[in-house]
Amino acid sequence: MKILTAIDSFKGSFTSQEANHIVAEAFKAWSKVTDVLEIPIADGGEGTMEVLLHHFEGEYRQVQVPNLAGREVTAKVGWVAEKRWAILEVAEVVGVQFLDGSSQTHPSQTNTQGLGHLIQAALDLGAQRLIIGLGGTGTIDLGWGLATALGARFMNKSGVEVPPLPGHFFQVDRIDLSGLAARLTEVQWTLLNDVTTPLLGPTGVVQLLGRQKGLKEAEFAVYEQGAHHFAMCLAKEDHDTPGDGAAGGIGWMLRQLCGATYVPGFQFIADTLDLRRRMAECDLVITGEGRLDAQSLIGKVPIGIAGLAKDLGKPCLAFTGKNNLTPEQYQFAGLTEVIPIVDQVMSLEAAMTQGPSHLARAAQRVVTLMQVSDALREIR
Amino acid sequence: MKILTAIDSFKGSFTSQEANHIVAEAFKAWSKVTDVLEIPIADGGEGTMEVLLHHFEGEYRQVQVPNLAGREVTAKVGWVAEKRWAILEVAEVVGVQFLDGSSQTHPSQTNTQGLGHLIQAALDLGAQRLIIGLGGTGTIDLGWGLATALGARFMNKSGVEVPPLPGHFFQVDRIDLSGLAARLTEVQWTLLNDVTTPLLGPTGVVQLLGRQKGLKEAEFAVYEQGAHHFAMCLAKEDHDTPGDGAAGGIGWMLRQLCGATYVPGFQFIADTLDLRRRMAECDLVITGEGRLDAQSLIGKVPIGIAGLAKDLGKPCLAFTGKNNLTPEQYQFAGLTEVIPIVDQVMSLEAAMTQGPSHLARAAQRVVTLMQVSDALREIR
Repeated sequence: MKILTAIDSFKGSFTSQEANHIVAEAFKAWSKVTDVLEIPIADGGEGTMEVLLHHFEGEYRQVQVPNLAGREVTAKVGWVAEKRWAILEVAEVVGVQFLDGSSQTHPSQTNTQGLGHLIQAALDLGAQRLIIGLGGTGTIDLGWGLATALGARFMNKSGVEVPPLPGHFFQVDRIDLSGLAARLTEVQWTLLNDVTTPLLGPTGVVQLLGRQKGLKEAEFAVYEQGAHHFAMCLAKEDHDTPGDGAAGGIGWMLRQLCGATYVPGFQFIADTLDLRRRMAECDLVITGEGRLDAQSLIGKVPIGIAGLAKDLGKPCLAFTGKNNLTPEQYQFAGLTEVIPIVDQVMSLEAAMTQGPSHLARAAQRVVTLMQVSDALREIR
Repeated sequence: MKILTAIDSFKGSFTSQEANHIVAEAFKAWSKVTDVLEIPIADGGEGTMEVLLHHFEGEYRQVQVPNLAGREVTAKVGWVAEKRWAILEVAEVVGVQFLDGSSQTHPSQTNTQGLGHLIQAALDLGAQRLIIGLGGTGTIDLGWGLATALGARFMNKSGVEVPPLPGHFFQVDRIDLSGLAARLTEVQWTLLNDVTTPLLGPTGVVQLLGRQKGLKEAEFAVYEQGAHHFAMCLAKEDHDTPGDGAAGGIGWMLRQLCGATYVPGFQFIADTLDLRRRMAECDLVITGEGRLDAQSLIGKVPIGIAGLAKDLGKPCLAFTGKNNLTPEQYQFAGLTEVIPIVDQVMSLEAAMTQGPSHLARAAQRVVTLMQVSDALREIR
């Protein structure tokens, strides 16, 4: 019997690669198992670069760029030389982890300029395709910063260039895109994006993300109007594609400048890793993630894996630290059963720090039960 | 396939009967299961009376007696008319639950007189056999109180009767047993007892139990000498049978006065319920208890059940709230696997109050895994 494991990371506890290895080791003890296919996996968010590099045996390149507040940081580009693919995660440069509540990281003061530099570095490697994970962004500049870093110029009425910060949205009058390198539109852009929010309006960048990033209630109206003005300057009509609101407008800007397109993260990774074909050769599928909840139903790994397994008629088990789905919900999604890894009353901290041993024990318990079932068969 | 469930109560959360019913219901959903034999069970401690009455379809009789501090309480006697068995739990009258830390419940002030009255009531029912659970006692009077209630007289040097309290151990000089009813030695006495401590000495009643019940360090020596003096007055030599220290000396006293004998609690119940024969007809055994730890290895239900299952070569699963045994320990004892019922980070209070639903979900998970295994078999 052949088993496929495709378990996401348990955030704060262990990586996808570790999770798959732990579970694979446990299942190898089951006498009926001939092969375990370990597939480190992600959903387009954190861990995506690692998973793709693992799959293609790519490598990390490090680049010094300014973060969202202008402070120099070391960011990684994943490089798959064989395919000339560069893999980026925007959070490396403009992620929420850089927000510290100070005035320097207020949404009016942060931008995506560093991300533009990171993209240039990826192009300098000779990339033919840029695959960009849009999760975890802390900026609301609609990609203005990265546009300037790529050569676009945003001038005021007097023809003076405006500093690319959300506080200056209103001042932009004329945009000069003649400085954009031709190569920007010659490469293939794949934006991994599971968010379907629009650029503007009540569920757009300013009003939905601005709140989380520190905009005050009184600031919403003026920033929303500013964003609207800025967006109209660049593109009179094109700002309501679902997903334009992702990553504080970065996706929208890359669509405008480079012809980038959105792809759901899990679907891209599943296709790239040829998951359906590999799963079809297996008898049992095992997935998991730190939490299972309503959010998991939108593009998260366990539900994506379960959906494939359901299509293929394979039983699918999920290990998790906390399950908020009902059996009806997860079984409809294709998860045959959810196996908790927490095994007694304990603190969240203990659950996190001892995560690997809890996962190992939970997997061993499943294997023992399978073997009990095997033994019972032989009796009857 | 036939399943036997013999799960102990999860103390503070649900009874043995409830536990067995919950698990049986879950396993009935497994298509291969033709029959589930639900066996409410106990280990001679709390729940013993209920389990035996359930098995024999006996009934409760209520008796008003003084508790260990002399306060009137309603105590139950289990009555199996068909066999003329009376089942008593000493904790009903002299249990630790009556200790409140006040001077009225200091060990010098408490005794087992009420238990003597309860025994009389059981004999008045026409009992031919008294089965007495010795667990959970809060007294250290060596059974003096119950002896006086049964008709024994303990006099001082002047021939005046001494009040039966540990504080007066030293005053006893002469004992008159002529008032004991003949019927006391005509019935069969079975004391359910898993404790192997002696009556006297460093692991005896005063020094081991006295500490837990509120004796101060400075009091140990004088009470130990008093207990020694008292024991010598009643029986010059016979106070070192293992188990005489159980229940603050109640077992020892009933041995002296009535020829009672000790029987390990689980073994008595297993024999009485004809467990081995019934288990031999089953394919899978399921047990459990609130906790599994080193204590469980000495006479607790899950390990007792596992031992029988091991003898009979049956797989045996245990559900538990908290498992402190290693796989090596529990597998050696005969438990094929231990299934935790806690399924995520939660407080002890939540684990206890939601215990039944956690047990139900854990049992359903096992059944689903068994069915996955069944389905996998059909593929190959």
